[in-house]
Amino acid sequence: MIDQQTFRDAMARLAAAVTVVTSDGPGGLCGTTASAVCSVSDTPPILLVCINRSSRNNAVLKQNGRLCVNVLRAEQQPLALQFSRSGIDAEERFTAGDWLRPIPHSAASAAAATSSTAQVAAMPVLNGALVSLDCRITETAEVGSHTVFYCTVDAVHFGVAGSAVVYFERGFHVVAPAA
Amino acid sequence: MIDQQTFRDAMARLAAAVTVVTSDGPGGLCGTTASAVCSVSDTPPILLVCINRSSRNNAVLKQNGRLCVNVLRAEQQPLALQFSRSGIDAEERFTAGDWLRPIPHSAASAAAATSSTAQVAAMPVLNGALVSLDCRITETAEVGSHTVFYCTVDAVHFGVAGSAVVYFERGFHVVAPAA
Repeated sequence: MIDQQTFRDAMARLAAAVTVVTSDGPGGLCGTTASAVCSVSDTPPILLVCINRSSRNNAVLKQNGRLCVNVLRAEQQPLALQFSRSGIDAEERFTAGDWLRPIPHSAASAAAATSSTAQVAAMPVLNGALVSLDCRITETAEVGSHTVFYCTVDAVHFGVAGSAVVYFERGFHVVAPAA
Repeated sequence: MIDQQTFRDAMARLAAAVTVVTSDGPGGLCGTTASAVCSVSDTPPILLVCINRSSRNNAVLKQNGRLCVNVLRAEQQPLALQFSRSGIDAEERFTAGDWLRPIPHSAASAAAATSSTAQVAAMPVLNGALVSLDCRITETAEVGSHTVFYCTVDAVHFGVAGSAVVYFERGFHVVAPAA
């Protein structure tokens, strides 16, 4: 088994999209930058998010039972730092960015042209994100230092197509869609 | 809940590194392109790989109990297509690329300057990949259409630093490290 530093050095070479994961509900408001987000299953539609067990966000997400994955557009890169800063509370983090909060999920569903009409709690949605995925946390797994949140996607809010932010070799990079 | 097509359209906007996951052992040789690879825990070092349950590779990986995640360098992009082509067998897939097969894990461990000396079966390692991670499959979870393979990293083989291949908006993109 390799040590922690070797693992981190290796993972620095695995490029990943940058997202801001948000949630609101009985556990309170939270928002955190996350690059450990992964598509799992298309039938049913499930993705996963890995969140450090030692972070406050972890407990909040579990209490709320819902989250929204906002995939950052290149122009929104500053939000990646804003939502990974320590020492500021959740409300202060959300002073940056254009947040649609709360947005009814039925409205988000309509925007995505789905037939979902379920009434669910509202999560903060980032206006102008490449895509925002409103999810129910349907299962969690404790794996070493992190919790894996399995999320069933209830609604999708598509922004205008644009460039993505990717984290690679410990820096941010812009990836433009093909012309 | 959204439908399959909406989910796929949304996931097309979540950029992801392109890897070739390989394995060899009692279940036979296999290699498949995978972009659903995600860092999970650094203590202990665990990553995950999602593989479709209907693919032959899925059963082979389970039988072998080990796999190697090879993170493609930009110049290796053609391998992404080679290892996702249907209708060709595993041996034929491996005719493209420079494969170190078998490489003793103790040698890979030494290259990564780890202290691991465990004797384990050899996985195909892609020479020139940004990084190759030799893993033990320590747990699996069946989630909808896919199996999530939780993998403990036994050894890492670092290639020379270079540009990555990222899949985004249904196309391949090159991401260069910062100058």
